[in-house]
Amino acid sequence: MGETEALRFLAERFKVTQKEVLKGIGDDSAVVELREKTCLVASTDTLVEGVHFHLGAQTPRQLGKKAVCVAVSDIGAMGAVPRYLLCSLGCRGKDAMDFIEGLSQGVGDGCREFGVCLVGGNLSESQTVFISMTALGEVLRDDMVLRSGASEGDDIYVTGTLGDSALGLRVLLDDCGIDGSEGAVSRHIEPTPRLQVGRMVARRGVASSMIDVSDGLFCDLEKLTSEHGLGAEVSLGSLPLSPGFLSLCGKLSEDAYRLALSGGEDYELLFTSSVRNRVSIEEVSRLCGIAISKIGSVTAGRKIRFFDEGGEEVFYDTGGFEHFC
Amino acid sequence: MGETEALRFLAERFKVTQKEVLKGIGDDSAVVELREKTCLVASTDTLVEGVHFHLGAQTPRQLGKKAVCVAVSDIGAMGAVPRYLLCSLGCRGKDAMDFIEGLSQGVGDGCREFGVCLVGGNLSESQTVFISMTALGEVLRDDMVLRSGASEGDDIYVTGTLGDSALGLRVLLDDCGIDGSEGAVSRHIEPTPRLQVGRMVARRGVASSMIDVSDGLFCDLEKLTSEHGLGAEVSLGSLPLSPGFLSLCGKLSEDAYRLALSGGEDYELLFTSSVRNRVSIEEVSRLCGIAISKIGSVTAGRKIRFFDEGGEEVFYDTGGFEHFC
Repeated sequence: MGETEALRFLAERFKVTQKEVLKGIGDDSAVVELREKTCLVASTDTLVEGVHFHLGAQTPRQLGKKAVCVAVSDIGAMGAVPRYLLCSLGCRGKDAMDFIEGLSQGVGDGCREFGVCLVGGNLSESQTVFISMTALGEVLRDDMVLRSGASEGDDIYVTGTLGDSALGLRVLLDDCGIDGSEGAVSRHIEPTPRLQVGRMVARRGVASSMIDVSDGLFCDLEKLTSEHGLGAEVSLGSLPLSPGFLSLCGKLSEDAYRLALSGGEDYELLFTSSVRNRVSIEEVSRLCGIAISKIGSVTAGRKIRFFDEGGEEVFYDTGGFEHFC
Repeated sequence: MGETEALRFLAERFKVTQKEVLKGIGDDSAVVELREKTCLVASTDTLVEGVHFHLGAQTPRQLGKKAVCVAVSDIGAMGAVPRYLLCSLGCRGKDAMDFIEGLSQGVGDGCREFGVCLVGGNLSESQTVFISMTALGEVLRDDMVLRSGASEGDDIYVTGTLGDSALGLRVLLDDCGIDGSEGAVSRHIEPTPRLQVGRMVARRGVASSMIDVSDGLFCDLEKLTSEHGLGAEVSLGSLPLSPGFLSLCGKLSEDAYRLALSGGEDYELLFTSSVRNRVSIEEVSRLCGIAISKIGSVTAGRKIRFFDEGGEEVFYDTGGFEHFC
């Protein structure tokens, strides 16, 4: 099948019924009417074959859903509500249709689960498969949470658990499918963006800064602190590590803390908050049914320091994932 | 240099000064305040190495500007005003910095020329170079011009001239740099989106349907007619062909009409309009200083037919560019 047929297939599959979408797939551009007094939030992210994923390690359907998750996670990290997606897909001509069909099922899964709709797309042949996803969302100006905004003394929080995704990736790459690795692998392949938590801390105005953990906790904590002239003290004992993760780290002789600090693609939310908001944050955790762990505090100076349970400083090679390095 | 440094470089280069852009590059997402009562228009397009361009045939700077042009052209074809861009770039680690630097200069050139600003971006390593550009724009609901909307009897118009870009591509691929080919090559490498014409026909409400010619006149005319149960009669003698194009076609033994009908990437506007708007369209042409040629009429039936100057029907193999074929 050719591009026209593929586009028609997509237009049919992603037929939009929301009345504010005046035009979805099938014209030069999508057209949507935004609610009044809201700001438009826009973010773009790409999954590239050989860098972010390896074909064969997951189905095209899983890949499609992950692309949606990665895209909406960035919108959620602003405290915004994701609404629309545009997808540029590059794939090889051979078997393109099967791939597009599977991928679009996964995009559909993600759209339903995260309440967004695909309004635009583009297909190209490419020797390297890539999925470029742009997410659009809305937020009230006062609710918006930026990466800048932390103050000295703020608590540092993270949702869910850390490191599982990086460990899952290691299991996938080593093809060492050992018992008990399913949870970690599934966290890598089908991450969950913390949209509800992001939205709730934003509406309550309790997050002074926020980011989603995609490059590894250390790297992303730098973006909330060091990049704004601040530092952080993190208590390793407070890092939320799942029992499955700890047991699997033992089996694979992985250093659990190192992986939790530098492993990417957790898609948990990392945010800072004044100490006076502790009760409110406990309430958000309870209402959303998601653990929110206080892992440290914002300090003066640009240094990020780690302490073990005995209060001793620990030094880690904590570089996260960087392209072109 | 690594990704962080490259991103910082881009954030610095594309520092946004417009007050409605609450957050540009450098956070999880961009945030903009749209004007009241306007609709958001969004489109995504990708240039892929080996498919849409060959490195070496143009500088990274030219490529960057072309990526902007292609993106804003889709917004213009809705009668909308392009405002913001998000760019996802994939390139090989080797020489990434030089490439990113050149490309971003070109993106800057395009931003200035077409009045848009880059508010978001993403960099990845990729074995195949690609530039995925999402453009966002604004339009009043009543001004919006869709691909659907043509009626039987409407005139068919096209701006500028056709075929130059496809001929320029042929010169580039054959590396046959003959005299007089500079104009065609430059049209391929640095196309001009017809934003002002698109905007003006939209505001005057004189276009019943509109598209930008990216896949070739025939293919794009199908999208305005056959896809909506209509047809077209096109007079070959009315096709706007530049003298340079005609002379170069002669030298290269190319069939000028075939190239004008099937060659892609003209980025001219193709639109339909009721016959009562002829005077208004002449005025738009004069005000914008851009030729707008009436090339035929919308008919009933789904067939697109071509006639020579003697009124004889001519048959062409008019397939435009399709991926995966």
